[in-house]
Amino acid sequence: MVVILRNGSGDEEIEKVEALSSRLGLSCHISKGAEKIVVGIIGDDRYTSVERFEALECVEQVVRVLKPFKLVSREFHGEDLNVEVGDVSIGNGKFAVMAGPCAVEDRSMIEESAAFLSEMGVRIIRGGAYKPRTSPYSFQGLGRKGLELLREAADRYGMKTVTEVTGEATLEAVSSLSDIVQIGARNAQNFQLIQRVASCGKPVLLKRGFMNTVEELLLSAEYIAYGGNMSIILCERGIRTFETSTRNTLDISAIPLIKMQSPLPIIADPSHASGRRDLIIPLSRAILAVGADGIEVEVHPRPESALSDSKQSLNFREFERLMQELKSLVDTRELVLT
Amino acid sequence: MVVILRNGSGDEEIEKVEALSSRLGLSCHISKGAEKIVVGIIGDDRYTSVERFEALECVEQVVRVLKPFKLVSREFHGEDLNVEVGDVSIGNGKFAVMAGPCAVEDRSMIEESAAFLSEMGVRIIRGGAYKPRTSPYSFQGLGRKGLELLREAADRYGMKTVTEVTGEATLEAVSSLSDIVQIGARNAQNFQLIQRVASCGKPVLLKRGFMNTVEELLLSAEYIAYGGNMSIILCERGIRTFETSTRNTLDISAIPLIKMQSPLPIIADPSHASGRRDLIIPLSRAILAVGADGIEVEVHPRPESALSDSKQSLNFREFERLMQELKSLVDTRELVLT
Amino acid sequence: MVVILRNGSGDEEIEKVEALSSRLGLSCHISKGAEKIVVGIIGDDRYTSVERFEALECVEQVVRVLKPFKLVSREFHGEDLNVEVGDVSIGNGKFAVMAGPCAVEDRSMIEESAAFLSEMGVRIIRGGAYKPRTSPYSFQGLGRKGLELLREAADRYGMKTVTEVTGEATLEAVSSLSDIVQIGARNAQNFQLIQRVASCGKPVLLKRGFMNTVEELLLSAEYIAYGGNMSIILCERGIRTFETSTRNTLDISAIPLIKMQSPLPIIADPSHASGRRDLIIPLSRAILAVGADGIEVEVHPRPESALSDSKQSLNFREFERLMQELKSLVDTRELVLT
Amino acid sequence: MVVILRNGSGDEEIEKVEALSSRLGLSCHISKGAEKIVVGIIGDDRYTSVERFEALECVEQVVRVLKPFKLVSREFHGEDLNVEVGDVSIGNGKFAVMAGPCAVEDRSMIEESAAFLSEMGVRIIRGGAYKPRTSPYSFQGLGRKGLELLREAADRYGMKTVTEVTGEATLEAVSSLSDIVQIGARNAQNFQLIQRVASCGKPVLLKRGFMNTVEELLLSAEYIAYGGNMSIILCERGIRTFETSTRNTLDISAIPLIKMQSPLPIIADPSHASGRRDLIIPLSRAILAVGADGIEVEVHPRPESALSDSKQSLNFREFERLMQELKSLVDTRELVLT
Repeated sequence: MVVILRNGSGDEEIEKVEALSSRLGLSCHISKGAEKIVVGIIGDDRYTSVERFEALECVEQVVRVLKPFKLVSREFHGEDLNVEVGDVSIGNGKFAVMAGPCAVEDRSMIEESAAFLSEMGVRIIRGGAYKPRTSPYSFQGLGRKGLELLREAADRYGMKTVTEVTGEATLEAVSSLSDIVQIGARNAQNFQLIQRVASCGKPVLLKRGFMNTVEELLLSAEYIAYGGNMSIILCERGIRTFETSTRNTLDISAIPLIKMQSPLPIIADPSHASGRRDLIIPLSRAILAVGADGIEVEVHPRPESALSDSKQSLNFREFERLMQELKSLVDTRELVLT
Repeated sequence: MVVILRNGSGDEEIEKVEALSSRLGLSCHISKGAEKIVVGIIGDDRYTSVERFEALECVEQVVRVLKPFKLVSREFHGEDLNVEVGDVSIGNGKFAVMAGPCAVEDRSMIEESAAFLSEMGVRIIRGGAYKPRTSPYSFQGLGRKGLELLREAADRYGMKTVTEVTGEATLEAVSSLSDIVQIGARNAQNFQLIQRVASCGKPVLLKRGFMNTVEELLLSAEYIAYGGNMSIILCERGIRTFETSTRNTLDISAIPLIKMQSPLPIIADPSHASGRRDLIIPLSRAILAVGADGIEVEVHPRPESALSDSKQSLNFREFERLMQELKSLVDTRELVLT
Repeated sequence: MVVILRNGSGDEEIEKVEALSSRLGLSCHISKGAEKIVVGIIGDDRYTSVERFEALECVEQVVRVLKPFKLVSREFHGEDLNVEVGDVSIGNGKFAVMAGPCAVEDRSMIEESAAFLSEMGVRIIRGGAYKPRTSPYSFQGLGRKGLELLREAADRYGMKTVTEVTGEATLEAVSSLSDIVQIGARNAQNFQLIQRVASCGKPVLLKRGFMNTVEELLLSAEYIAYGGNMSIILCERGIRTFETSTRNTLDISAIPLIKMQSPLPIIADPSHASGRRDLIIPLSRAILAVGADGIEVEVHPRPESALSDSKQSLNFREFERLMQELKSLVDTRELVLT
Repeated sequence: MVVILRNGSGDEEIEKVEALSSRLGLSCHISKGAEKIVVGIIGDDRYTSVERFEALECVEQVVRVLKPFKLVSREFHGEDLNVEVGDVSIGNGKFAVMAGPCAVEDRSMIEESAAFLSEMGVRIIRGGAYKPRTSPYSFQGLGRKGLELLREAADRYGMKTVTEVTGEATLEAVSSLSDIVQIGARNAQNFQLIQRVASCGKPVLLKRGFMNTVEELLLSAEYIAYGGNMSIILCERGIRTFETSTRNTLDISAIPLIKMQSPLPIIADPSHASGRRDLIIPLSRAILAVGADGIEVEVHPRPESALSDSKQSLNFREFERLMQELKSLVDTRELVLT
């Protein structure tokens, strides 16, 4: 890291920095400018050390030089990592379409969805059983019953499932019944939950919090990797900005940016990013064209009577058009649509 | 709620809105303008209903008329609510100073802190045992041992304690050993945890997520109230914006805004809001002057060797000056400093 | 517009709203709910009227029903509008690539750029003569000399030019020497300048301010249309958010959103949106795939010695690859690359 | 500045950095870590130089060490600067209340305002003649006539005036008729206008753009100082964030932060920051308590019939209460209310 001292600092302040470095087992490199003294600290660059230097009165600013994440970085693992979910592979030059309703509402609607999506070539069906809702008065999901209905429907059509876990108490149920365990945007920095999910033995779909930077997303992924699980799919789903005409702002730049920094596959969620059904198709085209490994999209047999996220769910006819458009684009990227 | 139809809508679209209203047990009031048709829906205004109308193809926009929260609203409870923590009262015209280190690091530092703070008149000591850290490589807190050390130190000086709970698995430990259970900014929409905290029988300090609106904060509080617990202290701790010269942006307007909408006491945290020791005193003055019920502030015997948040912790000398400044201001508000 | 009254309002408050409506020549439609009174105001919905109602003490909220812009709306002009710049057309199913250096630095570099870009098929060359720089110590552009050099270079290769106007005093020079007059992000709400540009007789490239909503962009465009000039090209160039790993956040959703609301052509600027050379190609692919009418991109013969924006300029080799990638994608949209 | 090289860099890359440094007349200091090479560049740290290094392919990141502004910095001018407006002084331990209507609407209302405000002890009256309005259909101000009416009213009561200039074409009129020339938030980076205002010979009230960082505000001020005018009053007026319950978010931390970095006086505008009349009094208390040198606040004889900003203007009775509250607080800061 690089430590910049306040104006007026001199030998006494340099000694303080050297003393702290020495206590932390690090070495120093002093650089005196006309106005400022800059100290290069050789070695560790982790958050804890950074904070220790920041706490010195004589320090104006500390700049990290090394990325704070390691196991999920390109430096550590140069080639793209794929995530295998049974016979379905995420990454690996394929463009995965994960689709399904926001929430599992009853047996017939999830069966109907699975039948349709399977016919359209979709291999991974999504559906919420435990719903994190902003209001306590909103539909909260069917719980374990929802997990079972999703499992049944997927099995009948040879599909894999992805569903969100919203707390430690329900992790056992989710990880035993779903193929991919999703950590949602509101839990993107719920580290206690993330640590437990890491060791559940299932691939993890980690959504970026709508308030998190790319670096924070990769640090949350680092928690999972550190817990011994490298089957991580990252998901960009929009960040919160001042613009209110969309629910969130899809940060499409994050996708190639993450690809440069990390070997993990990354998909995007145009439904939550925009919150508007009429934007899902153009955004999905952009997501494919920018180089993502897939999308997660909300589809409902009858959006107008959905119990949640009705405004941002495609109906079957719209989903069919989405798949057609993706197919025509996918050729330009030499991808396979999965 | 008010439903605005898309251009070109006519009787057919009005009938769709009426049909849905009738299915949901609501009544309609049609208003035809030169260009637009607007429908007033009389009755319930909850998220679920709003979403149902939004899902209709013919609907351009739905505007809620009623606040989505109820139990924590001024409409429901006109007078200020105080939170009693043993013999200490939060609200009630008093200005509470909750202070202590970011994390409990060992017995001697927390004892030293409690002795000093108690002498300064502080009645509630803060200290983290389970720390939600952005990086898995940062100091994660002492866990249960930290809770016990905080309890011991507080008891020796007749103080009350506040500490953060970071997951369901450790809630039992936190709620049995701490007087106030804190829900941190990163868990501000971890509804599964919030629901469990609601029923733990202890007062709750609910921090606003750094990317949450005031309305979302009040909805998270509504979850707690809905779970039967009205001992809720709200806490503004800065929101994330484009400005990077402070760690977050203290949203000081949120304090009087919440006072108008809710009877719950509200405090602010100048340490996390600014991330800079040199801003804590002026911000605390502003927080008092704007009408808050207190502050939560980080104090450490030796910030320069703190294991976390060292950059934003006051040392003892600075804290003493903070208290002096607050005392001179407090007279202008006819408050009692607690 | 819809006016929602505060709790506790009754006949007296309704009369106040009716009186104001009547003064403004508008009519009212009263809707009494169990808790709230809602008044539909039939007629005008402009900002001024909205503010008048908001000022009444008894009013809690006013919701506009009509879009505040008119001349640039789809409602007013259903079909796509193209902007003709001599024999070059923007819109009309074509994808325009406007390219060139951030600033015109001297004759040889702009000549070299024009020669190269022209050979690559680019028809519109960009180049700054008056540069709006955050610091007074940064390179401020060559001024009128820069305009002349750009004109000469473009003429030699049969190209059209686009350059930014930064103030009223230099508008005459810019509009007489450039084919398209650009209003930059920092002047996106400099209404006095915008009004004058409107009447300069040249097509206008209007960039979205990095802190402006889509609605504000369209209102700035409305100023131009209201001034009698419908040759307006909108440009999304990234908004300011909390994410700092890119210079701004490309709001890709704004492109289809604007297409739905307005017939004006819209392009995007991946250079300013990202501030990173290594993101320009993937972002350009996404911009094409999402449905934009073109891009404006920074290219420099030797970015490493550019006097401004060097970090976000492509070199010639990179630009060649960009064009190849766009060409392979453009077939999927049945566009013509211009 | 500090230049951090990409992984894999070696002697060849170091030589490139040294060569560029040498061309720019700067010297280098190399620091080789285990993973990274860091180069300290001694000397100039301006934007232009920073960009040159950023453009090198081998460079990952450049960190500025020196502040980019100089003339308006504490380092350059240690003691607080006051701005003298005739016999009224801004800064200097006083708390200035600048008040008046958003816009001058006619002679009688501005006369009535001046009479009242003067009686309340206000020495500087505000009032807009040229209004920068988001919509072309909103009231645009009375223009020169408005300036004259404001001047007359102020002169009758021995007051000073502040009014906004919105373009170069009207600067002559504004600077000849007003005592203080205001640069509004939408023109906070309209550098061509700012440069002209700098040389108009009048004190300048420079508002922070709602999209600008503190550093950018100080750089805009640097333009004025660089133009030879040190009579600059800075004004915090709220920044744009995701929170929509207030019009903007008052960044109260910016006030002490600017005080630390710059000797210029700084005031705040609670009217524009909040957009809500009911927040102005508590926010003004906070602004005083945090250490600002004054406020600029909107007051109107009859807000409910104001032609602009009616929602955020105090009426006379409310303004009287504001002054009382400020007087009781001002004693705690040993300030004089002006």
